[in-house]
Amino acid sequence: MVDDMKIYDFKLAPNPRRVRIFLAEKGAEVTYVQVDLFAGHNRRTEFLEKNPLGGLPVLEFDDGTYLAESVAICRYFEGTFPEPPLMGINPKDAAFVEMWNRRMELELFGPIGRALQHTHPMFKDRIKQFQEFGGIQREQALKQLEWLDSLLAQREFIAGDRYTIADITAQVAIDFGGEMVGISIPAHARHLKRWHDAVAARPSAKA
Amino acid sequence: MVDDMKIYDFKLAPNPRRVRIFLAEKGAEVTYVQVDLFAGHNRRTEFLEKNPLGGLPVLEFDDGTYLAESVAICRYFEGTFPEPPLMGINPKDAAFVEMWNRRMELELFGPIGRALQHTHPMFKDRIKQFQEFGGIQREQALKQLEWLDSLLAQREFIAGDRYTIADITAQVAIDFGGEMVGISIPAHARHLKRWHDAVAARPSAKA
Repeated sequence: MVDDMKIYDFKLAPNPRRVRIFLAEKGAEVTYVQVDLFAGHNRRTEFLEKNPLGGLPVLEFDDGTYLAESVAICRYFEGTFPEPPLMGINPKDAAFVEMWNRRMELELFGPIGRALQHTHPMFKDRIKQFQEFGGIQREQALKQLEWLDSLLAQREFIAGDRYTIADITAQVAIDFGGEMVGISIPAHARHLKRWHDAVAARPSAKA
Repeated sequence: MVDDMKIYDFKLAPNPRRVRIFLAEKGAEVTYVQVDLFAGHNRRTEFLEKNPLGGLPVLEFDDGTYLAESVAICRYFEGTFPEPPLMGINPKDAAFVEMWNRRMELELFGPIGRALQHTHPMFKDRIKQFQEFGGIQREQALKQLEWLDSLLAQREFIAGDRYTIADITAQVAIDFGGEMVGISIPAHARHLKRWHDAVAARPSAKA
């Protein structure tokens, strides 16, 4: 247990799940405090004092400072709990892992998130939705699943032959896209399916 | 000079500038090879073999591997040219720098980029534009400039009291927004202006 440290979390949101999986892979146990995004509790003053942008997760240190942004939180734990390495094993490898993690964010998680925001009734009162734009984002996400399938025909994991944070980002994005906006792995994408079965079978997938 | 390493670059694009400034701050000299984005040379097969996503910059290693994504390239050089540190000095500091760099990307660079793509004639034939969406993104970016001004009333640089990669991201985003879509620092934002004058006066700003 990591003493005096807690993470503000919400079980149903994708970004907090990235950090939960990451920490489960590290074997690091922290205290999680639920903040109900659906009820808007992340927009209350007491939470905005922790993260003025209102996003989850947020790591609270015992000195009263707050660290937001999923990957920044992961980087902190990578530095303090180095084993197993999930963000690269030397400068060059770390750079390639970062490239793949960012590609999963920008090319996959990004369009899935925008498809959700612009087409799902949940966001109807929160933002001005452009349904057609959301539909284009959805097509883009589906196209990237094909790309991932072709990549995974040549390698075991997203960034190469080791499991890394890039796998976590892709796993969370794909599970979230499937549940929320029906952006699912195509039946013919057998390499992507093989990879997804493998990451879903890891104990961390339940985190 | 970093032997046998080159970076595919385009002088007029913002992401390559992030890496050029980062390397200028490190005093690392590399060979730059121009790829004309305006002429679509990044969509040619020979370039897509280097980066299938078509983006710049790309770092070519002497073993024939290619590293894309600006921050991934910066991270490689942070590991191999540690001085001066631009991505944090210990695990906790590195995590906070990453938080601030990501906030500059997600909250500032993101809306500026989408405002450009959805309103600028340059993108008319490249994507389906949603002008109203672009306008909302523009307003969002302007709002974030106000937020940055209030932040910089309390600290010298974006991530605290040292110049970091988060300053580079913000500088490039703001210069690009000003030139391309008229998203400029408001006249009353004197703290943001003070910071911008300071980063613009560094020799790296010309990179």
